Amino acid sequence: MTVRADYRYFQPILTRWHDNDVYGHVNNVTYYSYFDTAVNTYLIEQGGLDIHGGAVVGFVVSSACDYFASVAFPDRLEVGLRVGKLGSSSVQYELAVFRAGEEEACAAGRFVHVFVDRATNQPVAIPDGLRGALERLV
Amino acid sequence: MTVRADYRYFQPILTRWHDNDVYGHVNNVTYYSYFDTAVNTYLIEQGGLDIHGGAVVGFVVSSACDYFASVAFPDRLEVGLRVGKLGSSSVQYELAVFRAGEEEACAAGRFVHVFVDRATNQPVAIPDGLRGALERLV
Amino acid sequence: MTVRADYRYFQPILTRWHDNDVYGHVNNVTYYSYFDTAVNTYLIEQGGLDIHGGAVVGFVVSSACDYFASVAFPDRLEVGLRVGKLGSSSVQYELAVFRAGEEEACAAGRFVHVFVDRATNQPVAIPDGLRGALERLV
Amino acid sequence: MTVRADYRYFQPILTRWHDNDVYGHVNNVTYYSYFDTAVNTYLIEQGGLDIHGGAVVGFVVSSACDYFASVAFPDRLEVGLRVGKLGSSSVQYELAVFRAGEEEACAAGRFVHVFVDRATNQPVAIPDGLRGALERLV
Repeated sequence: MTVRADYRYFQPILTRWHDNDVYGHVNNVTYYSYFDTAVNTYLIEQGGLDIHGGAVVGFVVSSACDYFASVAFPDRLEVGLRVGKLGSSSVQYELAVFRAGEEEACAAGRFVHVFVDRATNQPVAIPDGLRGALERLV
Repeated sequence: MTVRADYRYFQPILTRWHDNDVYGHVNNVTYYSYFDTAVNTYLIEQGGLDIHGGAVVGFVVSSACDYFASVAFPDRLEVGLRVGKLGSSSVQYELAVFRAGEEEACAAGRFVHVFVDRATNQPVAIPDGLRGALERLV
Repeated sequence: MTVRADYRYFQPILTRWHDNDVYGHVNNVTYYSYFDTAVNTYLIEQGGLDIHGGAVVGFVVSSACDYFASVAFPDRLEVGLRVGKLGSSSVQYELAVFRAGEEEACAAGRFVHVFVDRATNQPVAIPDGLRGALERLV
Repeated sequence: MTVRADYRYFQPILTRWHDNDVYGHVNNVTYYSYFDTAVNTYLIEQGGLDIHGGAVVGFVVSSACDYFASVAFPDRLEVGLRVGKLGSSSVQYELAVFRAGEEEACAAGRFVHVFVDRATNQPVAIPDGLRGALERLV
């Protein structure tokens, strides 16, 4: 069972009309857009990531999600985030989707960012500002 | 100039990572998804619209948007909504996108819903619950 | 009636699972993503637009669409494109969505690009390569 | 190394303008929409799946993807598909994304569908038409 206490940071997500697919639930793909949004909001606001012109860029090299229960627009959601593994140039995020007010997750996933130099695409050490923010989620 | 006082209902929108396109701003297409979300949230929560099995369905027959200033993830936004024309089976929504805390709109648009019978696709009179909710936005 | 002969360039569009919304048809918003795709494919392949680092960027300042008949995944579509007005720094595109093999359009729309300097965001004259490509669609 | 010969069915995918994110590549999330599209196109066209009113619905219970090399709009792609495990009510799809004309995959993923009764959401045996189509991809 995946519960809120397992996570360190929570990102509110307001579902949108077209998060639902033809079956009337949030499409499985859309959960990953919630994950991207939670992680990047945190990195920008807490770690100083500059997505427009910063020297480093986070590339996703793997991702996965398990779905336990469906959610649907217009549900209000929260994405829980913690850091699993923190390496010199990469980080594994662990995430879960909760309905507002609920303790048990509807889905749980993870993805790995490798930080690379924007110009050369070569892996680089995670800059100090980002690393500090990530360490607070371990 | 399009300002908040021109609108009756406000829907918060949290931008998402992939609302931005390669140019670093929210893509022009995405504004329409904000409009869809504002209108349908209002119709569901205030007018009793049942999007999963209700007898009537709102079909969009025209839409338009003018863009005044760019917005970008991770901006917090609000969509203002009012009703322009309210006919027997159709309604024109007028909408605008505001950054949280700003008075002037970054974009203003509109779209027309024709309500049809879910089974026959033929236009029907707007049901009383929906009509009441729409009249409050005129 | 909007027909194929009204357009100069045709962009194939393969619908995707999540183009459909909960009502089982391609969502009204998604048509604009088809328009963006048709125009930018043409500008890149025929006009030499460099979306990653080129000196000019096309900003959308207005857009609109009228919807005549629904389409749905897994339909094969084509987007017809012509140029309406061609100014010194702006262009109005006129577009329509056709099902493969059909003469009459399911939707017709338009949008205006203003070309700006990537660094300053100030309008600039449309570069020669792009202008030549656009003139061929008038 | 993941190559074309590992897959049984190929679904063409035309990238779209907004498949790219702010970093100029197809966003990691979008690959899953390609997977959804490949599988559902095959199930509809080869297995008779009726997504609008059929008795059974495929729910995704887990998904994953590994990313080897980036792709970007306007690339032409193909998604390769094979069936990994085929159970009584569930199936694991294995997929990969190829650039048109290339032998090595840019990404490889998988997801599991559990087929449920549309009305009760309870797992059901995969109907014969679908099962036959799935067996051809083992």
